[in-house]
Amino acid sequence: MSETHPADHLINAADEVKIRQRLVRVALGHIPADMKLRVGKLLDVHSRMWLTDQEIIISGRRIAYVGPAGSFTGEVAQEVNEPDLMAVPGFGEVHKHIESSHVTPEWEAALVLPHGNTWTCEASHEFSNVDGPNNLQFWFTARLAGSPQKIFPLPGSAVPPTAYEWGGGYFGFDEQHEFMADHLMVAGLDEVMDWPAVWNPENPSYNRLWGMIEATFAQRGVIEGHAAGIKDQPTINAFAAAGLSSDHEAWTAEEVLDKLRRGLFMELRPHSVKDMITGLLDAGLGDWSQFALTTDDRSCSDTLKLGATDYNVRLAIDAGLAPEIAIQMVTINPARHMRLTPWVGSIAPGRFADIVLLDDLDTLSIRKVWADGELVAEDGEYLKPVPHIDWPDWATQTVNIQREMTAEDFAIPAHAGRETMTAALLRPFHWHDDFIEMELPVKDGHVQRDASRNVTKFAIVDRFSGEGKTSAMFWLGTGPKTPDTALACSMGHDKHNIWAVGSSDAAMAQAVNALREIQGGWALVREGKLVATVRYEVGGLMTCRAPQELDAEMQALYAEGDKIDWMYEPTFSPRWFPGFPERLAFATLTCAPWRWVLVAPSERAPHGFVNVATGQTHPIVW
Amino acid sequence: MSETHPADHLINAADEVKIRQRLVRVALGHIPADMKLRVGKLLDVHSRMWLTDQEIIISGRRIAYVGPAGSFTGEVAQEVNEPDLMAVPGFGEVHKHIESSHVTPEWEAALVLPHGNTWTCEASHEFSNVDGPNNLQFWFTARLAGSPQKIFPLPGSAVPPTAYEWGGGYFGFDEQHEFMADHLMVAGLDEVMDWPAVWNPENPSYNRLWGMIEATFAQRGVIEGHAAGIKDQPTINAFAAAGLSSDHEAWTAEEVLDKLRRGLFMELRPHSVKDMITGLLDAGLGDWSQFALTTDDRSCSDTLKLGATDYNVRLAIDAGLAPEIAIQMVTINPARHMRLTPWVGSIAPGRFADIVLLDDLDTLSIRKVWADGELVAEDGEYLKPVPHIDWPDWATQTVNIQREMTAEDFAIPAHAGRETMTAALLRPFHWHDDFIEMELPVKDGHVQRDASRNVTKFAIVDRFSGEGKTSAMFWLGTGPKTPDTALACSMGHDKHNIWAVGSSDAAMAQAVNALREIQGGWALVREGKLVATVRYEVGGLMTCRAPQELDAEMQALYAEGDKIDWMYEPTFSPRWFPGFPERLAFATLTCAPWRWVLVAPSERAPHGFVNVATGQTHPIVW
Repeated sequence: MSETHPADHLINAADEVKIRQRLVRVALGHIPADMKLRVGKLLDVHSRMWLTDQEIIISGRRIAYVGPAGSFTGEVAQEVNEPDLMAVPGFGEVHKHIESSHVTPEWEAALVLPHGNTWTCEASHEFSNVDGPNNLQFWFTARLAGSPQKIFPLPGSAVPPTAYEWGGGYFGFDEQHEFMADHLMVAGLDEVMDWPAVWNPENPSYNRLWGMIEATFAQRGVIEGHAAGIKDQPTINAFAAAGLSSDHEAWTAEEVLDKLRRGLFMELRPHSVKDMITGLLDAGLGDWSQFALTTDDRSCSDTLKLGATDYNVRLAIDAGLAPEIAIQMVTINPARHMRLTPWVGSIAPGRFADIVLLDDLDTLSIRKVWADGELVAEDGEYLKPVPHIDWPDWATQTVNIQREMTAEDFAIPAHAGRETMTAALLRPFHWHDDFIEMELPVKDGHVQRDASRNVTKFAIVDRFSGEGKTSAMFWLGTGPKTPDTALACSMGHDKHNIWAVGSSDAAMAQAVNALREIQGGWALVREGKLVATVRYEVGGLMTCRAPQELDAEMQALYAEGDKIDWMYEPTFSPRWFPGFPERLAFATLTCAPWRWVLVAPSERAPHGFVNVATGQTHPIVW
Repeated sequence: MSETHPADHLINAADEVKIRQRLVRVALGHIPADMKLRVGKLLDVHSRMWLTDQEIIISGRRIAYVGPAGSFTGEVAQEVNEPDLMAVPGFGEVHKHIESSHVTPEWEAALVLPHGNTWTCEASHEFSNVDGPNNLQFWFTARLAGSPQKIFPLPGSAVPPTAYEWGGGYFGFDEQHEFMADHLMVAGLDEVMDWPAVWNPENPSYNRLWGMIEATFAQRGVIEGHAAGIKDQPTINAFAAAGLSSDHEAWTAEEVLDKLRRGLFMELRPHSVKDMITGLLDAGLGDWSQFALTTDDRSCSDTLKLGATDYNVRLAIDAGLAPEIAIQMVTINPARHMRLTPWVGSIAPGRFADIVLLDDLDTLSIRKVWADGELVAEDGEYLKPVPHIDWPDWATQTVNIQREMTAEDFAIPAHAGRETMTAALLRPFHWHDDFIEMELPVKDGHVQRDASRNVTKFAIVDRFSGEGKTSAMFWLGTGPKTPDTALACSMGHDKHNIWAVGSSDAAMAQAVNALREIQGGWALVREGKLVATVRYEVGGLMTCRAPQELDAEMQALYAEGDKIDWMYEPTFSPRWFPGFPERLAFATLTCAPWRWVLVAPSERAPHGFVNVATGQTHPIVW
């Protein structure tokens, strides 16, 4: 059989048949198995019951048989006995942007597999916004090179995030139709975020978004939602009626219940998971099968510190949830929601042999992790070699600015003869219908910052056209007070142009130019000197390096950042903190509940300042 | 909008988008709704929690909004208030052969909607075996004519049931691929029954079956299983490893647990549901989300007597299961398993407005049933007109025997000069590796029955070729002792040729000829006289008449049958009873756990006597 035995990296129907025909013969004892893993206890997530002294028979990367120890009738080449450990299924992420780890998928595997995270539904609109056409190839490369983590990419609906953004990728009906028709690994459509484009027929993205929804329905895919800030009954109902099947943006138990009752599969994130679970337990929730725990975005620095999926489970257990239910919320529940149960989510025949071995349940203490039928991690250490991938130019050359940026690019000219001008201002996470207005001084023909009132400048530089088209405006309560200082980054959700915030235009230009050099990442200029860079050379979002190495670079950036006096204004809590403004990378979002945003200059928003809820534009200064 | 508003009978992606775009606007109050149904209580099956005083807002056939009474902000054309009733979602059948009701789908709706059964996953291998090419058209006709019941046909893998059968329909990769690509109503592949054709590469149906499995995987469909008699660990594991995702053939709690733990979605049938549920409760089952209750086969006579899906729920409640869990098992659980949650399974936006209104929970007392957004049944009475359908010839002309059958067709010639011959005998439900052997007398050159030893003759007459090809053999413990008496029927699972059992060859011929006349159904000949017929003029399996009318005909058949002295031998209990041998229609099954069976003469089984587990054939007499 071996010459025709599929590699079994990416799921496709033809290979699936060959693989399962073989598993059947192994299960019946007609041909030998590769491995017997005997465990002291095994959590059956279908019945939520523990079984004692079980054997798991493995063939290739899959489970062929599970049963009481000694019940298998066939031959096995190798046996491993773990009488003191408890086997639970490999953990899955129902909604994670691996890009937010900032390491490439082969390094993501090394990062999260020791934490039990063996499969991930990749919320694929970060890299897609940088290179839509190569998106699936990007997510499949590491797996094809032997990485044991299973990545199921869901093409993002936010490509581009709104009709006011452009460059890098465009997904509509045709693209989604092709993705789903060509790849069984694609489970559906990722988080529909541009709510105004869903409900409002006048929105210029209406047809593109509904086209993707149609293509997903047509191929029995799952349509993921993103209902941030959607809390009133009519909008929750409308959201569910649109066919958006889930939400991961709820903050309170009340909001969770309101959405769950309208049929949404609820994906709980760590931010407020303890409050949500406590509240749901208090409310007498009768059924947890419509729930998952998930990460969404977490930097590798945070993962190294907190953990991966296991951290989410621990939070749920700490909140008082039965560990078995918490484990279901990262195994069978998300697998079922994503229609991936034939492959992941339980320790059962046909599924990948991905098994987490615990030595303590209540603390979710992970002793060993198996994936693809072999031991891949022990005591937090990844045991496999990380495949060497030479990421091609389409992945590594994505900061396309064919000129040197100058201070002039960030200047905001005043009208002739004016001593002050009125400026439109935003704060990070300023979810109000109206922007802020402020009278700002004019000097040398340009409108000026005002550090005394916490006003600095924020800019978006397009990194797709080659021209470095730039939008700049004044922002309140973020950025450096320290003179001639700027921070720039090529990760700016979700369009991932370059954003820069700075106390001088020259420093902003200098920081952006540094990013041109290193093809993405972070650049920090302090008092006119480039003091730190962090390299995200893959898509301008990730690096092909060990997480520890990237983390060291990030820590150096933070250390330099600590020497800067950062402005601060409170806004939506708890997502906006004083100090180094790392979360500005999310303050460039353009989905609900955002209203006024800054984007790169576009046809529909020539100055980049636009209300994404209404399409209204407005001058930056007047 | 109305001119472009889809009829919304059959689900397709393009219409789905239009429908949901409209629902969104209704939910937001931008355009008026058709109906507000206010209810005293509402079961949210997602949380398994009751909500009090809720309003359900309906647009077209769908739910646009659900929320606390008074929370909807839009206009509604009409309001209905049911403060004393409890709303639960319309009940679904996860696995039912509507053909076994023996009425056409428009009459099935009239039969089961008063019992709350608003949607059914049609286990479509009965009509398919009669007319494969027109199968989907058959199941969609009533819905397109306005019937409020949603039928989701799953093409049967058993077309033909085994490689030893033929005629009527043939489904392989190409057919299943086309069914799934063309129709979103097709949720997957129905019960894979021919287990030897799944595990054994030498089986002549191996490639056909795996081709259907491949086509289903390729389009993200659900592959249903049928694991009758599969109870040992290796075979259960192999069954699950094959990708067969469910079973509805378990009989005991122990068998249920063994299958559930290998990942099978368990569909519990009424036969032993009380024992299974009691056993599962005793075993401490922690999670019921992998369970459904379902009917499989039930005649309209039994449905009139017992109930439909509601009967199954009542049995579960009587066994001690919480009513809310029992209701989940016929709503959200099967909808999720079948990946139909966007349309059915809960009272939530986007779903069809199918609602069962109870006046007592513990007895599941159904006061009213809504479907497609209107009241369709009250106090057990169906309120809608049944659409008149002129079923075309392909449906009504399916007993194709172009000649008069004679006694000679059923005669079993003896070898020259023999006074006795050894005969191979079967009993109904004789699930043994070996057939029975008996020495039988020879008279006039033919081997003879022996009523004194409970031996009569059983035959299968092909109704597809036009030639009436016939296999006949001796059977033990069934059929009439009364002389010149025979029973024949055109429903003979699953190939649905005509079977006949009789105390004389002439009576058998007479009974089969009667079926030729009426194009299918039952025919009973007693002492040389045709004493009863029941007409199944549609596919030879169903009639296009009110269930009550058919039931009256069946009661007349039973009454005439009662005047006959029927043989009996115990066999697999409890499915084989003394008296009128109605269940002979299932004794013609050829799937696991059957071994030796009688089929119509075929290339691979020229005399029709074949072991379907091994492919071995054997003479009838020797």
